[in-house]
Amino acid sequence: MRITGLGYYLPEQIETSESLAPKIGKSVDWILSRTGIRERRVSQIDVDEMGAIAAKKALNDGPPPDLILNASGVPKQTLPDTSTFIQAQLGYEGIPSFSVHATCLSFLTALKTANNFIVCGDYKRILIVSSDRGTCGRNFSEPESSSLLGDAAAAVLVEPANESSESALLHWNMKTWPEGATYTEVRGGGTNKHPQDPNTKDTDNLFTMNGPMIYKMARKHVYTMLNDDLKTIGINRKDITLLVPHQASGLAVKAYVKYGKFNSEQVMDIIAYTGNCVAASLPLALAIGFEESRFKRGDLVYLIGTGAGLSIASTLIRF
Amino acid sequence: MRITGLGYYLPEQIETSESLAPKIGKSVDWILSRTGIRERRVSQIDVDEMGAIAAKKALNDGPPPDLILNASGVPKQTLPDTSTFIQAQLGYEGIPSFSVHATCLSFLTALKTANNFIVCGDYKRILIVSSDRGTCGRNFSEPESSSLLGDAAAAVLVEPANESSESALLHWNMKTWPEGATYTEVRGGGTNKHPQDPNTKDTDNLFTMNGPMIYKMARKHVYTMLNDDLKTIGINRKDITLLVPHQASGLAVKAYVKYGKFNSEQVMDIIAYTGNCVAASLPLALAIGFEESRFKRGDLVYLIGTGAGLSIASTLIRF
Repeated sequence: MRITGLGYYLPEQIETSESLAPKIGKSVDWILSRTGIRERRVSQIDVDEMGAIAAKKALNDGPPPDLILNASGVPKQTLPDTSTFIQAQLGYEGIPSFSVHATCLSFLTALKTANNFIVCGDYKRILIVSSDRGTCGRNFSEPESSSLLGDAAAAVLVEPANESSESALLHWNMKTWPEGATYTEVRGGGTNKHPQDPNTKDTDNLFTMNGPMIYKMARKHVYTMLNDDLKTIGINRKDITLLVPHQASGLAVKAYVKYGKFNSEQVMDIIAYTGNCVAASLPLALAIGFEESRFKRGDLVYLIGTGAGLSIASTLIRF
Repeated sequence: MRITGLGYYLPEQIETSESLAPKIGKSVDWILSRTGIRERRVSQIDVDEMGAIAAKKALNDGPPPDLILNASGVPKQTLPDTSTFIQAQLGYEGIPSFSVHATCLSFLTALKTANNFIVCGDYKRILIVSSDRGTCGRNFSEPESSSLLGDAAAAVLVEPANESSESALLHWNMKTWPEGATYTEVRGGGTNKHPQDPNTKDTDNLFTMNGPMIYKMARKHVYTMLNDDLKTIGINRKDITLLVPHQASGLAVKAYVKYGKFNSEQVMDIIAYTGNCVAASLPLALAIGFEESRFKRGDLVYLIGTGAGLSIASTLIRF
């Protein structure tokens, strides 16, 4: 497979940490030291419209895709699937559409799913869209997670690689530890804390996380996976042109340099100006990295991240 | 690929149409004539626990799977993914887990995804679990959909086919028409009608459908897909041992005989005693068909159905 189009959408409205600070009863310095985030975007349009803007850029006026995969963290609504609404916003009818969901790692699971559809010869032009409005679900009485979340959408177009091209998805890895299931939650929105259940509290519908526990659990597992991947693939850190981590928090992104032993130029770090954009975070960082010419055709790009679950996934592509 | 294990769970509690009728202000005859459903199950345990019961039967005391795919219609909660909770109920740690979501067609999209993971050599023992508690989301002031929904879980285990085996996923087809997006909805549960939005009404969190419009749209597209599939694959109706349709409604299932020109013995029809079990409906009908020896190794089994979207998907397997 080969990624032949990338696009992203960052909403116009910027919320600075200066304007957020009084809402959560903390100082700007507190926000910066805990999350590393100076500003985030707040969308006034819904996820399907955001996703379609990113998708149009990825499609670049080309023909319609033959499969649409929604790879977002939170849906537009329970039914139908968000992919249907993205297709509607793009003005298409009749294109198979479904979701691949692994919270913040949805883009990686969808990219691997798309790769396999291409390898198996099922589809030839797959649009993957990740679009999240995390700011909708903020609980201002939980200052850390409220500071982290931002809105964005990003999309990629995946096609078969030419015979002469080296482009490929070279490696895939994922693990999930339910031990960490309660560390990152939105307990509402399903059958567990159903909206009609009188025991469901307002805060059940909002994002909650235990930052220190996630960081502790993630650091151990992420670096095990990273080292296992390098060993299995048979490459060194220096062979990777760009490491694109899920922009979980400032600390988590910087840990790839501090503990992961990558050079800071190798690590895509956009979190200060976007926040944690849930599932859109990984493809957004990839699309901005491409726009900034941080990698070119033939380069190795390694994507890795953590998601609620707790899950960890990684993907190595030769772009 | 080869399906090597099947399991299902039907909750003990039976709700007859006699007991439902007064709640929705209709007669039993009305329910039977509109939906064909005599009784449905109502679960007292949540989707992850239901799914794990079905999964244990599919796993049949064998080793753990190397991938868990949740293929349900409605999640346990917004985050983390339902697959994490199913893994927790099964007592595992470290197994990659994510969801494939296409409302009532989630099982078919997950089966195709699992097939491709096997063909590409990524995994060798994939557990697919569909578990839905549609009765949680019933709106008793909408009598038709309230009569339709029932609770169930079903699971299959997918492994590589032996060299000597004919087992395979032979054909896959899916189409989505956003034109039908408003015909089947739960508008809440996401960013569209967020629980914190003061404009979100209680009914936005409940299932709503326009039965006649779905039936009209589905009938046209289902039979086009069915005929296209038979032509593309190069088989006749008589070559199919069992047609397993999504148990959408009594009318929809019987239409495969009346308009689809299959013999009634060829069509799996369990809806009178299970109701429409959302995404669990298709694997439930498959697992019950297997239990009842309606098909055997080497037989052609054709699965087809409609889902909110409106989506239509079909899969031909040689079991």
